[in-house]
Amino acid sequence: MIILGIDPGSVLCGYGVINMQGNNKFTLIEYGVIHAKKSTPDFFLRLKEIYNKTDAIIKRTQPDYVSVESMFYSKNVQSLMKLSHARAAAILASTMNNKEISEYSPKEVKKSVTGRGAASKEQVSFMVRKILNIPETPEFFDATDALAVAVCHGLKFGQPKQKVSGWSDYVKNNPDKVL
Amino acid sequence: MIILGIDPGSVLCGYGVINMQGNNKFTLIEYGVIHAKKSTPDFFLRLKEIYNKTDAIIKRTQPDYVSVESMFYSKNVQSLMKLSHARAAAILASTMNNKEISEYSPKEVKKSVTGRGAASKEQVSFMVRKILNIPETPEFFDATDALAVAVCHGLKFGQPKQKVSGWSDYVKNNPDKVL
Repeated sequence: MIILGIDPGSVLCGYGVINMQGNNKFTLIEYGVIHAKKSTPDFFLRLKEIYNKTDAIIKRTQPDYVSVESMFYSKNVQSLMKLSHARAAAILASTMNNKEISEYSPKEVKKSVTGRGAASKEQVSFMVRKILNIPETPEFFDATDALAVAVCHGLKFGQPKQKVSGWSDYVKNNPDKVL
Repeated sequence: MIILGIDPGSVLCGYGVINMQGNNKFTLIEYGVIHAKKSTPDFFLRLKEIYNKTDAIIKRTQPDYVSVESMFYSKNVQSLMKLSHARAAAILASTMNNKEISEYSPKEVKKSVTGRGAASKEQVSFMVRKILNIPETPEFFDATDALAVAVCHGLKFGQPKQKVSGWSDYVKNNPDKVL
């Protein structure tokens, strides 16, 4: 199961793509940041940049799920509005590719990766690198935060559910339940 | 010059397309609202709906300019975040179609249409209907607000600027400035 995690931002937008096999065997596919502000100072064109790059990542890695952090309210209003615009651009690229999106609160993400809801960015980054066997130190926390959101989704909903198409399948898969 | 005005919202998103000939001769092309919430309760899919419908309006009416209200801060945080997401969807549909976007504050829009920055929605609607010869009473203020943003852009920047490609052109167009 391939999961794309996104940590949206109008300056830097982090992304991380992982593969999960079985219950919790994670491997890294790719990660990085979209330097939206670097490519253009125009805010509206930055949204286009985020959309286009996210679209390219989705088309390239074909994730089964997209995972983003839910919005939190503590930022100042101006930042919050910009973040919302950037987040919408990344989300739109996902829905336009018919991807299912899950939201997790920052606390949930930190807890699922480090065991502690109040973990620091450094701790999250350290654990993500450990889980995914990343030897280098990523340049931006935005990228490891994005990977953390992807891992969080994997741990929460990753367990592949056996699809049952009828009673015969069910009986075959659950012989102990047959009296 | 064709102008698309947008009044974004995640429940109702108003739009209005007008044509401006000369300095201030306005004619209505079309207007309406995108019922984003009606089509789906899922917020992420609503963004897709706004994007797709705005994209269709742009492809159908081929505006030269897109005009939106700038963000204002008085709403509560939850509404502000939702509005920002919806606004980003409409803006993205415009930038993806390579349209230039202008922003005007609510006060500027009201002032340019009614002459008064603190005009009510009813007054704005009344003046827009008068300027564009709309006999019926539009069901939603979102649509007349969108038309007002389009008219505002027309009045502010509508005057087609003569393009000057060099001194010879300038001299030809401004004989009174030659000593």
